[in-house]
Amino acid sequence: MGKRQDKLRLGAFIYYSGHHSASWRHPLANGKDIFSVDYYIKAAQIAERGKFDMMFLADYLYLAGVEHTAAGMLDPVTLLSAIATHTSKLGLTATGSTTYNEPFHLARRYATLDHISNGRAAWNIVTSQHDIEAQNFGRQQHPEHGLRYQMAEEYVDLTRELWDSWHDDALVNDKENSIFTQPGAVREIHYEGQWYSSRGPLNVPRPPQGYPVLVVAGASKAGIDFAAKTGEVVFTAQQSLEGAKAFYQAIHEQLEKEGRHKDSIKIMPGISPVLASTEEEAWAKYEELNALVSEEDAVAAVSHFLKYDLSAYPANGPLPELPDLAGASNAMKSRIQLFIDTAHAEKLTIVELGRKMHGARGHLEFVGTPEQFADLVEQWFNEYACDGFNIMPPILPADLETFVELAIPVLQERGLFRKEYEGTTLREHLGLERPAPAHFKKGQVV
Amino acid sequence: MGKRQDKLRLGAFIYYSGHHSASWRHPLANGKDIFSVDYYIKAAQIAERGKFDMMFLADYLYLAGVEHTAAGMLDPVTLLSAIATHTSKLGLTATGSTTYNEPFHLARRYATLDHISNGRAAWNIVTSQHDIEAQNFGRQQHPEHGLRYQMAEEYVDLTRELWDSWHDDALVNDKENSIFTQPGAVREIHYEGQWYSSRGPLNVPRPPQGYPVLVVAGASKAGIDFAAKTGEVVFTAQQSLEGAKAFYQAIHEQLEKEGRHKDSIKIMPGISPVLASTEEEAWAKYEELNALVSEEDAVAAVSHFLKYDLSAYPANGPLPELPDLAGASNAMKSRIQLFIDTAHAEKLTIVELGRKMHGARGHLEFVGTPEQFADLVEQWFNEYACDGFNIMPPILPADLETFVELAIPVLQERGLFRKEYEGTTLREHLGLERPAPAHFKKGQVV
Repeated sequence: MGKRQDKLRLGAFIYYSGHHSASWRHPLANGKDIFSVDYYIKAAQIAERGKFDMMFLADYLYLAGVEHTAAGMLDPVTLLSAIATHTSKLGLTATGSTTYNEPFHLARRYATLDHISNGRAAWNIVTSQHDIEAQNFGRQQHPEHGLRYQMAEEYVDLTRELWDSWHDDALVNDKENSIFTQPGAVREIHYEGQWYSSRGPLNVPRPPQGYPVLVVAGASKAGIDFAAKTGEVVFTAQQSLEGAKAFYQAIHEQLEKEGRHKDSIKIMPGISPVLASTEEEAWAKYEELNALVSEEDAVAAVSHFLKYDLSAYPANGPLPELPDLAGASNAMKSRIQLFIDTAHAEKLTIVELGRKMHGARGHLEFVGTPEQFADLVEQWFNEYACDGFNIMPPILPADLETFVELAIPVLQERGLFRKEYEGTTLREHLGLERPAPAHFKKGQVV
Repeated sequence: MGKRQDKLRLGAFIYYSGHHSASWRHPLANGKDIFSVDYYIKAAQIAERGKFDMMFLADYLYLAGVEHTAAGMLDPVTLLSAIATHTSKLGLTATGSTTYNEPFHLARRYATLDHISNGRAAWNIVTSQHDIEAQNFGRQQHPEHGLRYQMAEEYVDLTRELWDSWHDDALVNDKENSIFTQPGAVREIHYEGQWYSSRGPLNVPRPPQGYPVLVVAGASKAGIDFAAKTGEVVFTAQQSLEGAKAFYQAIHEQLEKEGRHKDSIKIMPGISPVLASTEEEAWAKYEELNALVSEEDAVAAVSHFLKYDLSAYPANGPLPELPDLAGASNAMKSRIQLFIDTAHAEKLTIVELGRKMHGARGHLEFVGTPEQFADLVEQWFNEYACDGFNIMPPILPADLETFVELAIPVLQERGLFRKEYEGTTLREHLGLERPAPAHFKKGQVV
């Protein structure tokens, strides 16, 4: 397997006080950090020192379990705006739900972030998951999986039209002749879709990147189709090299059907690395974190995730046969199946599975030395199992700092990862083309 | 008339490249600034140097007239978040529409801004104005004036419940016992209103200020009632001392009926000061700006504002008798009447009225020396025509800088305005009480 000519892409996924759900109880973390802008700025600056392509923020539109878990989340676009002015190169990815945001507001906020950051914004497009999210917005039920993706496609189509409602060169600011924008260069869109409509134009000029980078997740059939149609970065959970290669191939097959170029998408599985100078130390760190999860919490995590009460089964026994889940749950279908498959393949007990859930929520965990980590990365990258990784440090910001100190130099030495930023926008970091200027096929001059 | 014991409150209203609509054509301004975060940070830092209570940002959810006017607007909450980390005392007021934002999102974003700024956020509550705003959000018509205010009251009630869904001391972060929030201290609200409902809790802790400061505008009967029920700062357009005193009294009478303390509200008219060391210089500056507005644009501004075509009337003649406007327009009723009254009282020609509109959109304009300005301020303040002013510099940031250099020292010398910040939160600057901790009457423990 020859070396690839392109470079590895890395995201720094900043999540609560670390991706391990017990991280907030660890001496190196502080649960209160999750509401502190200073904490996020510090994490962003560490990531930028490490030459990461981007920082990545999740978003949930509900709150549950907060009594015993570090939960709650500042609004990610608002937060990234503060971070933007304390960094200069790092990409800034915020998750945003198509199901519970008005397209005009969302298009405007990401455009605002792209302007504030001079072209470093990305939108991780999600459709949300739970009825309790719907209920925060005066609705009863979360829409069904397939419908949500159909709606999301129209939604993204509309946001693109809004971003395109200003021509790239619209703003001329001609004081002498009192011409602020070129005649015809800002246009109403009069978008009328099945679910969404908007008059336009957007009240913010076309973003520096044309569109913010569009990130998608989801490994179901609908998720893959959506990625191939719309995604520029695919965030995915992959537990094995073989599975990741199959996923990579599936995306690229669908991409070809859509007539898109193979370089127009970057596939980045999540990985949660527990790193230390020796394997023994790394495993000791891992065990120390897992010990912070009680057997009871481990079983509860599995029960909660599968929406099936497992408390009557032996905690240190195998996962029992379960009723068909596809019908029972409308959320995170592919992730649930992945968990069940992993439990069977690795012969995990319920407690072990629960602790794995607390570790990285179905994403790959890695425990070992920086060299071993680089071996894995190199193999996955060179065998086209991925184009990079979204790094999910178990404890934050400590393990991100460890990653930058220990892993980044090894990846750089092997020629896998950049030593300096070559561009300034996130599209440039990721090697993604800037979308062509607004087409101006529809609508009226403002 | 004796001196008041309390101090004057000042807002720095940052609006496009200045409040004069032709400011972007002036050599001291740059229209491109309105999309540049650096411009807003600079303005904020000037305001903080001047010890202003707060910076104030408008918000419009549509775009019109951009070909010949500096128009368009970055999302204000997103923008203020970036500004928050480059200031430490200045209050940060963003306008937000109740008609076109989900209460859960709005409550969360202002809570986020209040956390990021350590208690400096304010929400200027508006209900929006135009059908073209409705049409950006997939609706046809903007709701009727009175209905909007009824909806807004319920809306604010709901956002307060969301902010109260976390007790002030909820977050304990007890690692040892794995208790992140105190039992019972974070609660679902299950709010079921006539127009809005939300399950809660909010996914962000109670804001440092309890609630962001609640700013209201609007001088109609519905607007005054809303202010007396809900407002903590009232932003208003007043053209005369007598009118302002009557408004002040009307608000306070209604406030008393609501059972609220007289100190629980601060009334701040807008004022656009054109200042120079001599009167002659000040008038020359004013004329220079007005000359940038053509007669045609002046007439068009009046026609547009009154929604009545005046192009057939003599531009340098008086405003003709107009058909009844109350029925013709659902937007800005009180502002329109104010304009008509001003035109008649000051015997303005259509062109003069139009240039006044371009100057400060119906807010008071002042042209003169810093001492003359301080005389006006002192009289209005001491005669209870206001508790302060929202300063609307004609050209930005130049005239804000002029204001801080010329006017602030005079106000300070007269003992009207603070020389140093005494507190750190906006509530402390304004002398507003922090709302009592969450009451926890409803709902379920999470």
